[in-house]
Amino acid sequence: MTSLRIRASFQGITSCLKQHSSRQSDKEDRKKMPPGFGDERNGDQCDRSICVNNPHLESMKEDILYHLNLDTATHDLPKQFGDVKFVCVGGSPWRMKSFIEYIAKELGLADPKGEYPNICEGTDRYAMYKVGPVLSVSHGMGIPSISIMLHELIKLLYHARCTDVTVVRIGTSGGIGLQPGTVVVTKQSVDAMFLPRFEQVVLGKTLVRSTELDVELAEELLQCSKDLAEFETVIGNTMCTLDFYEGQARLDGAFCSYTEEEKQNYLSEAYAAGVRNIEMESSVFAAMCKLSNIRAAVVCVTLLDRQKGDQLTSSHEVLHSYQQRPQILVGHYIKKKLNAFKRT
Amino acid sequence: MTSLRIRASFQGITSCLKQHSSRQSDKEDRKKMPPGFGDERNGDQCDRSICVNNPHLESMKEDILYHLNLDTATHDLPKQFGDVKFVCVGGSPWRMKSFIEYIAKELGLADPKGEYPNICEGTDRYAMYKVGPVLSVSHGMGIPSISIMLHELIKLLYHARCTDVTVVRIGTSGGIGLQPGTVVVTKQSVDAMFLPRFEQVVLGKTLVRSTELDVELAEELLQCSKDLAEFETVIGNTMCTLDFYEGQARLDGAFCSYTEEEKQNYLSEAYAAGVRNIEMESSVFAAMCKLSNIRAAVVCVTLLDRQKGDQLTSSHEVLHSYQQRPQILVGHYIKKKLNAFKRT
Repeated sequence: MTSLRIRASFQGITSCLKQHSSRQSDKEDRKKMPPGFGDERNGDQCDRSICVNNPHLESMKEDILYHLNLDTATHDLPKQFGDVKFVCVGGSPWRMKSFIEYIAKELGLADPKGEYPNICEGTDRYAMYKVGPVLSVSHGMGIPSISIMLHELIKLLYHARCTDVTVVRIGTSGGIGLQPGTVVVTKQSVDAMFLPRFEQVVLGKTLVRSTELDVELAEELLQCSKDLAEFETVIGNTMCTLDFYEGQARLDGAFCSYTEEEKQNYLSEAYAAGVRNIEMESSVFAAMCKLSNIRAAVVCVTLLDRQKGDQLTSSHEVLHSYQQRPQILVGHYIKKKLNAFKRT
Repeated sequence: MTSLRIRASFQGITSCLKQHSSRQSDKEDRKKMPPGFGDERNGDQCDRSICVNNPHLESMKEDILYHLNLDTATHDLPKQFGDVKFVCVGGSPWRMKSFIEYIAKELGLADPKGEYPNICEGTDRYAMYKVGPVLSVSHGMGIPSISIMLHELIKLLYHARCTDVTVVRIGTSGGIGLQPGTVVVTKQSVDAMFLPRFEQVVLGKTLVRSTELDVELAEELLQCSKDLAEFETVIGNTMCTLDFYEGQARLDGAFCSYTEEEKQNYLSEAYAAGVRNIEMESSVFAAMCKLSNIRAAVVCVTLLDRQKGDQLTSSHEVLHSYQQRPQILVGHYIKKKLNAFKRT
């Protein structure tokens, strides 16, 4: 049984539950961790434990992570996931499979048969792949879809007693004032009024949560792009919307009640507020990672310049090559971090 | 080129663009429609045309339905989809494939080889299947995900010049005060404050849209359940939330700041407001179908009673059998309607 202690008030930003494990198998499990990670983090003084802000979990005999088709009763989560240090999440299951294949090769961990089983096999809600310390998980489209996945992923990392985990969303987006194919590392995730906040409804009441991301991590990712010198990368604000068409001022949805001029004015206001791209998941991603004490970043490629159009008219080949850029960037970052750990 | 005329003011509830087709191929296309449908609806007086409330579509040479991997330039949408009369949508791609297999058998249209190609092949965002006048489309989880699909589906039905289309969401949900396995046909889709409204953000401003559904259709579906006498079906309000855990007062998410008592009070208030189940798509579904002049219903099975728990502990077999109930109910409805048309 895990005992939990509340370190700070829950509501809002910095609350955290610290994990004091007393499971018999704990020490054994931690010994099994791969070298270079985690060893120095044993015990109560771990700064980067996964925080679950939920005292009720303590009293649950079993936890069913329904949408991931995993649970604590029939799976040994510490054994299966305890070594995870990097989690990459993205909308498309295909893209997340392609990422695990890519990172496996980059890290010299490629499966000789090229087989990367879907850990969430048995459900079609999400797909999950793992190689070494890297987990790759799909999250579907939009805030509610990624939110379900993140609740269960955070509990998974908590049950697996992971430490020092970095989570990066690698996605696609519409750009503002950028050459298509430019990668944006998010400084702040802002809402449709350009404010850095996420509104969460709890028991019918709206709470506001911070969407702050890790500044240092964003700078490290920008540096990785400079190392690579393969494509343009900028740091900017990312607008997160609940809708792809009207919510992003598109003129090509089934409904549109505004003019081209009103659209352009809105996008110009967004640009003036520092917004460089628009997508649909970053705000809740930032808010939930912050609440869980997880280092997080959002890296999205822009598929088009929204000031020049709404439809994705580029060829499949061009769009596909753009979509690989966040993978290449984050792959480079992971390799760099792992090499740095090996050297120390 | 299609010319459009605005019949009513766009904003709000009942606005509609009426379709006056002057394409050369129009009359030919309509002649190809299957007997029993649509023939009497030719011309300008069609009451149940698909409405797209967007004057900008008129000036577009081509429309790329990006997330469905379809477009008007390389696909003959009227030929491919012009005969569609029933569209069933649901979260899971697997379930929507299983539905098309089921309805094909029920309608005597089963493919001898059991092959039902995914019309959206080439993308993993959504899956789409068709047999005769029935289209089956997946929409992922949550309002933003179903909203993207519906924008593109409504434009698809519009471009295909479909008429008299009925769209039904067949889904899963958490019940309140109902035996698990009970099917709920939605009377009103309400938000977390139990109000029948959907808030849509457009250019940073929040608009409120009605979530009214077709009362007659709901009654017809209830009658179908009585015909079948296989499982319990009720008509009730459905609460639509942006979040599965905190948004639905669950105690088992990564975060929870309320007590079991507060959870129970909230669910009791919901019950008192007529809410019988909770899911994550019905409000925008109802709002968008209403704006498009499409007859719509929401039919969801309850997988558990939320007053008794939060986790889905039933076996896969039990959950699977529950999930078939909306399919069986809507399958019966479609068969009944098609038989009635054949008789007239």
